[in-house]
Amino acid sequence: MRLRKVKDAEKKIENSKYIINNPSDFSGQFSNIFKNNNPIYVEIGMGKGNFIIQNALKYTDINFIGIEKFDSVMVRAIEKLNELDIPNLRLIKMDALEIDNIFNKEIDCLYLNFSDPWPKKRHTNRRLTSPIFLKKYDVIFKNTNKIIMKTDNRHLFEYSLKSFVDYGYKIGDISLDLYDDDISKNIPTEYETKFVSQGMIIYYVEVNK
Amino acid sequence: MRLRKVKDAEKKIENSKYIINNPSDFSGQFSNIFKNNNPIYVEIGMGKGNFIIQNALKYTDINFIGIEKFDSVMVRAIEKLNELDIPNLRLIKMDALEIDNIFNKEIDCLYLNFSDPWPKKRHTNRRLTSPIFLKKYDVIFKNTNKIIMKTDNRHLFEYSLKSFVDYGYKIGDISLDLYDDDISKNIPTEYETKFVSQGMIIYYVEVNK
Repeated sequence: MRLRKVKDAEKKIENSKYIINNPSDFSGQFSNIFKNNNPIYVEIGMGKGNFIIQNALKYTDINFIGIEKFDSVMVRAIEKLNELDIPNLRLIKMDALEIDNIFNKEIDCLYLNFSDPWPKKRHTNRRLTSPIFLKKYDVIFKNTNKIIMKTDNRHLFEYSLKSFVDYGYKIGDISLDLYDDDISKNIPTEYETKFVSQGMIIYYVEVNK
Repeated sequence: MRLRKVKDAEKKIENSKYIINNPSDFSGQFSNIFKNNNPIYVEIGMGKGNFIIQNALKYTDINFIGIEKFDSVMVRAIEKLNELDIPNLRLIKMDALEIDNIFNKEIDCLYLNFSDPWPKKRHTNRRLTSPIFLKKYDVIFKNTNKIIMKTDNRHLFEYSLKSFVDYGYKIGDISLDLYDDDISKNIPTEYETKFVSQGMIIYYVEVNK
């Protein structure tokens, strides 16, 4: 029963019109998929997709690509998307570790929303803001690097600020309590909505290099 | 009655053995005052003095200089100090704007504790972490610049992080909720004790250049 479920999810994902099944074929040419030269924004760990779907619907002159490695959450996004037609949105099932083999100087903005904090010191390198990943991101950005991060995890946020700045990033917009500021333009993720309802602080930063 | 009080405070401060009354005379030679070559740490806005007095008592191999422009709070520090003999502590009554005319490549660490947030945009330049002040601090540090900041004011902290990094500082230790971390080594200011008792978050950062 459980196996059936996983297989169904895999199949649903593979067959979705939103999915890019062989992304490395498009390296350096993702604009061709969208058939325009609009900026491309990528979200690593799109989960069930609320954030990237709402963004794509709102900002139609930006192309969005959502990345996710887990079938179980990605299939939920696919199910939502089946009822919609969003030309400026595509999804890739992949591990973020591969990101520098997929994109090549063509991304304008990278979203890291509620990434796994990997709290143990020996797992530092797995954090999406560790120097290992920051080096990979250098490969994917077109002109300037722009990363926008949201998290409820204070220690991940502290670590990330240090890591970004050590790597040469400057700090743009920053909020140490996003929901106490003007959030009229904020699009929440599923996690975010849950955490906010529990009264947790949401941290936000935009960094540029 | 009020005038008398002020005059008394002025006199008490001037006559204190801890006060350096003509600080510009010692520019570049503050070590002479302490008669040793220990590092010199400065606190701008020492207020009633708890932070710098406790530091001086605890770290006897560091020389501490507290700066304050208001008689009314400084006299409270003086009154406490009259009963103590702390050879590694001196105080200067001055405006922080003058700091680059007083110290000359001789400071090892600068503390900015609960500085005035100057929340209005037109007062940005008055914040002790604005580029105007950061430029002044370049004059006072001996080798590397090291600034340690604590505040309860979120917007001042956000502004300061950006400002430090724009000016070339790297982020060292940082806590976005100091009292939720290990505070065994923390020495609180009078303001801090009050704010913490009200349940407010205390932000902490150490930056280096």
